[in-house]
Amino acid sequence: MQSSERLDLKSLIRSIPDYPRTGIIFRDITSLIAHGAGFKQSVRDLTEPYMDQKIDKVAGIEARGFIFGGAMADVLGVGFVPIRKQGKLPGKVVGQDYSLEYGTDRIELHADAIAQGERVLLVDDLIATGGTALAAIELLKRVGGDIVSAAFVIDLPDLGGASLLREKGVDVHSLVAFEGE
Amino acid sequence: MQSSERLDLKSLIRSIPDYPRTGIIFRDITSLIAHGAGFKQSVRDLTEPYMDQKIDKVAGIEARGFIFGGAMADVLGVGFVPIRKQGKLPGKVVGQDYSLEYGTDRIELHADAIAQGERVLLVDDLIATGGTALAAIELLKRVGGDIVSAAFVIDLPDLGGASLLREKGVDVHSLVAFEGE
Repeated sequence: MQSSERLDLKSLIRSIPDYPRTGIIFRDITSLIAHGAGFKQSVRDLTEPYMDQKIDKVAGIEARGFIFGGAMADVLGVGFVPIRKQGKLPGKVVGQDYSLEYGTDRIELHADAIAQGERVLLVDDLIATGGTALAAIELLKRVGGDIVSAAFVIDLPDLGGASLLREKGVDVHSLVAFEGE
Repeated sequence: MQSSERLDLKSLIRSIPDYPRTGIIFRDITSLIAHGAGFKQSVRDLTEPYMDQKIDKVAGIEARGFIFGGAMADVLGVGFVPIRKQGKLPGKVVGQDYSLEYGTDRIELHADAIAQGERVLLVDDLIATGGTALAAIELLKRVGGDIVSAAFVIDLPDLGGASLLREKGVDVHSLVAFEGE
């Protein structure tokens, strides 16, 4: 941003009550990213802490993590690595299950996506309980990545995910917090 | 790219034989986007034709279109609009079915994603028969968008999608063509 005027990113995030079910307020980043200056500021604010961190790869979690992560990799001039739902990557993969409220889900990473010792920045739009992020970190480490940090647009601190990542030694940055949920 | 040295993007796209099934050669962009300079050149080459085209929104198709489209929206300084699989968007949507080899699939767009008359650039990683792209264009037009162009990393010209879009009056750009498939 060349302008010194800063947008209030939180005000650009739309809240949708009772989605995906009654009692949940869904924090919807589509209204933020539809706003050209808001999206650009988000990408800059997410990327700025890492400009001098010698990042080798940005790893984004499907699907909203791709939108921010692709832009961040481009700004940093580094490669982008997709972490996808099961069965979506065409090459040889490593996979990791993680718990949902009911049952489990699985994410996958190409086994050759990261060279041994490469410095990786993990990106997603939101961290809640941290289950997906921890599974992603496990996969990235398993293929030899050095996890420099994890960056999120939104933190829901009451759900404990950011604290959990920090307890496990992972640096965490986020732009906006919604408390009390 | 400040450098005058240009990469051969086609050589950075990995080909995976017999995926997703026997006889199909899958063109895998994960090897291109994992290459920092290759990804950056892709984003620049995809975006360059539109720098002076007064684009209002970049619309990307889930999921690989998000990686390129997010970076392109950031470079252009405009908003990004996701076109997603059915049931993934939290707000009020419009939806469109399209034909697959067997059966149909459905994509959705937030009904308020585009303001009337906004100039939209559609982005995806690959155009084959054009079914998904045409469905996306139908959705974008239905909510009032003016489709300036559709940009793809890979064109499979023998499958006719780019020709079909042009017959319908849509400008098409692509970076790399794989013929004879």
